[in-house]
Amino acid sequence: MSDSRVSQSPGRSPRRALPLNRVTVRDAFWSPRLTQVGDSILPYQWDALNDRVPGAAPSHAFENLRIAAGDGTGAFHGYVFQDSDVAKWLEAVAYSLNQRPNPELEALADRVIDVVARAQQPDGYLDSYFTIKEPAKRWSNVRDWHEMYCAGHMIEAGVAYYEATGKDRLLDVARRLADHIDSRFGPQPGQRRGYPGHEEIELALVKLHRVTGEDRYLRLSKYFIDERGSEPQFFDLEAQERGDPAAGRPYDKSYSQSHLPVRQQTVAVGHAVRAMYLYSGMADIAAATGDSTLFRACRGLWENLTHRQMYITGGIGSAEQGEAFTFDYDLPNDTAYTETCAAIGLVFWAHRMLRLDVDRDYADTMERALYNGVLSGISLDGRSYFYVNPLEVWPEACGRRGDHRHVEPTRKPWFGCACCPPNLARLIASFGQYIYAEDDETLYVHLYASSAGRFEIGGQSVTLSQATDYPWDGAVAIDVAVERPASFGIAIRVPGWCADASATVNGIRLALERVNRNGYVRIAREWRSGDRIELEFPMTIQRVYADPRVREDVGRVALQRGPIVYCLEEVDNGPNLPSISLPRDATLTLEGCDASLGNAPCIVGTARRVDESGYDSVSMYRPKPPIFDDVSLRAVPYFAWGNRGAGEMLVWIREG
Amino acid sequence: MSDSRVSQSPGRSPRRALPLNRVTVRDAFWSPRLTQVGDSILPYQWDALNDRVPGAAPSHAFENLRIAAGDGTGAFHGYVFQDSDVAKWLEAVAYSLNQRPNPELEALADRVIDVVARAQQPDGYLDSYFTIKEPAKRWSNVRDWHEMYCAGHMIEAGVAYYEATGKDRLLDVARRLADHIDSRFGPQPGQRRGYPGHEEIELALVKLHRVTGEDRYLRLSKYFIDERGSEPQFFDLEAQERGDPAAGRPYDKSYSQSHLPVRQQTVAVGHAVRAMYLYSGMADIAAATGDSTLFRACRGLWENLTHRQMYITGGIGSAEQGEAFTFDYDLPNDTAYTETCAAIGLVFWAHRMLRLDVDRDYADTMERALYNGVLSGISLDGRSYFYVNPLEVWPEACGRRGDHRHVEPTRKPWFGCACCPPNLARLIASFGQYIYAEDDETLYVHLYASSAGRFEIGGQSVTLSQATDYPWDGAVAIDVAVERPASFGIAIRVPGWCADASATVNGIRLALERVNRNGYVRIAREWRSGDRIELEFPMTIQRVYADPRVREDVGRVALQRGPIVYCLEEVDNGPNLPSISLPRDATLTLEGCDASLGNAPCIVGTARRVDESGYDSVSMYRPKPPIFDDVSLRAVPYFAWGNRGAGEMLVWIREG
Repeated sequence: MSDSRVSQSPGRSPRRALPLNRVTVRDAFWSPRLTQVGDSILPYQWDALNDRVPGAAPSHAFENLRIAAGDGTGAFHGYVFQDSDVAKWLEAVAYSLNQRPNPELEALADRVIDVVARAQQPDGYLDSYFTIKEPAKRWSNVRDWHEMYCAGHMIEAGVAYYEATGKDRLLDVARRLADHIDSRFGPQPGQRRGYPGHEEIELALVKLHRVTGEDRYLRLSKYFIDERGSEPQFFDLEAQERGDPAAGRPYDKSYSQSHLPVRQQTVAVGHAVRAMYLYSGMADIAAATGDSTLFRACRGLWENLTHRQMYITGGIGSAEQGEAFTFDYDLPNDTAYTETCAAIGLVFWAHRMLRLDVDRDYADTMERALYNGVLSGISLDGRSYFYVNPLEVWPEACGRRGDHRHVEPTRKPWFGCACCPPNLARLIASFGQYIYAEDDETLYVHLYASSAGRFEIGGQSVTLSQATDYPWDGAVAIDVAVERPASFGIAIRVPGWCADASATVNGIRLALERVNRNGYVRIAREWRSGDRIELEFPMTIQRVYADPRVREDVGRVALQRGPIVYCLEEVDNGPNLPSISLPRDATLTLEGCDASLGNAPCIVGTARRVDESGYDSVSMYRPKPPIFDDVSLRAVPYFAWGNRGAGEMLVWIREG
Repeated sequence: MSDSRVSQSPGRSPRRALPLNRVTVRDAFWSPRLTQVGDSILPYQWDALNDRVPGAAPSHAFENLRIAAGDGTGAFHGYVFQDSDVAKWLEAVAYSLNQRPNPELEALADRVIDVVARAQQPDGYLDSYFTIKEPAKRWSNVRDWHEMYCAGHMIEAGVAYYEATGKDRLLDVARRLADHIDSRFGPQPGQRRGYPGHEEIELALVKLHRVTGEDRYLRLSKYFIDERGSEPQFFDLEAQERGDPAAGRPYDKSYSQSHLPVRQQTVAVGHAVRAMYLYSGMADIAAATGDSTLFRACRGLWENLTHRQMYITGGIGSAEQGEAFTFDYDLPNDTAYTETCAAIGLVFWAHRMLRLDVDRDYADTMERALYNGVLSGISLDGRSYFYVNPLEVWPEACGRRGDHRHVEPTRKPWFGCACCPPNLARLIASFGQYIYAEDDETLYVHLYASSAGRFEIGGQSVTLSQATDYPWDGAVAIDVAVERPASFGIAIRVPGWCADASATVNGIRLALERVNRNGYVRIAREWRSGDRIELEFPMTIQRVYADPRVREDVGRVALQRGPIVYCLEEVDNGPNLPSISLPRDATLTLEGCDASLGNAPCIVGTARRVDESGYDSVSMYRPKPPIFDDVSLRAVPYFAWGNRGAGEMLVWIREG
């Protein structure tokens, strides 16, 4: 097979993610979820946004926009960022329509967009809170009041809806909103040298630039990123200007990543979602402008985050207070905050890093977050959600304020602060865009799912058709279809979890020992239709150990198979899960699929458990060593936990 | 030795604790501490109460009383219960004077008492907060405003100062204050059917009854206990009466143990200090009245507390929120609240239970709390204090709000809420009263410390002189001195931690295998001067295991020797203490006394530690099992931790 070679991945010219409208997902794992988003989740969430879900926290989000549009009367209700829930819902609708027509949903979205458009003010301003409640305070507290955050989400929605339907009404709203902001913020005389307290608009403006071709949106995004953290500090000036009585008191600028200019930041700090959105915007600007200083800053932050501050589930942000990062290796399992939105943000950032730098570290992390800490946020039926995704849950302790206030033992139908549910909907609906990428010489396969990607390379259209039972089986077949034979590369990620991958092209084995250090195999040859790449990533049940500086996990083991992290649940293993230990030499086997867990295979084996009998009548503390009994153990995918009633859950199992 | 026999301990006629003025402590462990209280701690605390300690949280406590007495001007500062700090300080002075004359300290206390007496109002009311700040609100919120709590402490001080010095000025203040309260609260028409939100006065009134002989104080105490939790709920009525806007909202009555009548309570709930003071009062009333229903309630609460909700250190109340108990077996080590005052309260309660029921369970627990969770609250130099006594500390995490806000890595010179420091002073100064008890037939030895107790039995004075190096050595010699030969019993506690005790009387071995199930050996014979009891409680280094329902401690071991619980400190063992594991077969030996730890012996041995090298450049999570290195381990007494700078601390060590 002289025309195949395994080579280094190409340099740092940015790759283009294959957009959603060029990817078709037909996958046993993902397609039901995509269908569920359109058929069930988005209608359900629409009901929640309109306060029609019994027992759910009230939203009022759409009603606020109706009032601002003059269609309703009454008071604003909810958080200052309530509009963003509607924006993310519209964006999710767009991705869903992009993948699968749904005239009813589209008609509903059109009606929503009509209201949004009429809620926009003549000068382009759009934020129902300030329009209804405090019009005089517009733009007076960009640090705390989320106007730019809401704008960013509305811009993303406008771009996505335009790309899905060709309809530009919401895109026009987005443009006028961006123009309004562009006129007010920037370095020119009469403009405010500011930037948002909650980042988001940066990445949104890059999308707006992409579909409109208008450079000023890219410039404004870059301005927000370049200006952030510079002296004199905008948030201080702004607080003084508005006569904030707290202006003299210290504000922890690291909370909003504005403590330093972004290029000087080396440690992931502050509110985890804000951080992910900022770093995503930084990566976007690095890709759009070729700014290597921004790439280096992103790389440093990435290494800090993924080597020191990330849970095995891809959950990030361990502290409830500030929904924030704390410090290196501080990853408690039972009080972990690990907001669903933060794991989603990590997917966004990882995906953008892959554009800058082909390294499986990004794709592995994207996959880790996606299949674990993101999907754990939503129930299998799509109708209940975790805001917080700890790695150990004891339902009785969840009521304990002071340290467990934020931990819920069961998913909720909605939240007062409902950022996560529509964020999940838009991520799942847009799953297809994370699979493939391309540049002028290479097609990239980042993720594995049965799907087809339609690429443009060398002046022709090329299709890769992927067939796999991932994430439950590591066999992947990729069929190549070209208009005419052509030479280019296909770069395939060898997952970091897989130690003994093998691959063939048309049945001929590739020398995978030459996989480059970045974890991608680039197969360069003249491709013809009918060529087939077959990959085998054997999925063994792996015992995974944490960096021992994560003190919570020392002496413990997690079970993983492929990209899926497993956990123990009380419903399978009885109460007091921490009393279970797994001997190092215990045999673990795969058990057939469980319908109540979305047909996921489970892991079973024999473990040991401390005998709890005979303690009631004696001292709690005694010199007699505990007695261990053999017990059967059953582990289920972490993302599927909590779908069978309330109970304990545990990821990190004692070993020994 | 036909005249010696080991018999059941006597029945439930209450024993009398041997009061402080009949006990002389001359002990290598305790005497330096008693001296330190008089010479250093009480003067230091006086400075703190007068805001003369640089860097300490302000108190203003004495100044408030001066203002109320007309000696000063200005505003009240501090908590509504600020007076109680002065009251406890006076009580501690009294105990110290009782043990050891100190004319200077006595003169100071007399001056303080003069101010307190003049701060008392003509009607007997005494509380500087309401006198200075809100006189119209006296007695309008007994639930929250601590007037009875402050009164209780002032009554205790008055009794103690009278017993130590014979001076009755503060006792008169206490009587007038108690009379004032007695006139206002009770079942008679015109009285309020109330009881305090923060219990304390119940046990104080029993003391006042003891020294004055006035039955009405005992009746009032019993009334508070009997009335507590009855319907209609006083705290609800009171809230309605004062027009509290929160009156309609639920108040968690379990916080103040008023959710049920006390005789129906079976689980220790709510604010841990309040609970201990209530249960102490219940035991006092049970002893004073022979009320077996109260004893049974105490016993049920005791079993719940000590078998399900107590740390190995005797620390209790695991939750920061409400400084409270949570639920059975919920004993996190790193976020433990375990207030010093709660462990002190447990000593009070255990001591009172011993009056009702001779069972070493009480004395063992009293000893456990005293030598571990109480003494940990004070530095070896007596000048800094822990309010919170966790069993695992990671200084970096102490700043983490949301779950570690309350945990301090180092003791503080004082607190805004400074209940613990003077509580420590009064407990240490009164240590002698916990050692011995007597009834009409038996002398009891509950604790071991070199000391002499002067008993009255059979119409003569009997002295037991105890010599020991406890808690570091388990050999105890007790010499008996009688005026004339007499038959009575001497009941000696065999500590629960000791599995192979031996004893002789005049060199003749006792059959200790016949120790009764309550853990006391009663030696009945005709005692003559010169008789000597020798006890040997071999102190081995013990590995102690927790009830496995305490999930935080499963797979872990604590080290204990005699009554002393040990811990690891970073200064001896390096950082990341949780990465250390102790093989079950590791040899542990005692190391000579360490002057920097108050001459405590340490425990040393060889343990294992996860090798932390080689993780920085790889994924945080990987299938490679960790490598263990042999390391030397050094454990120090828990009470002495944190005396050598800030650093990590850990009680429960992974085993294996």
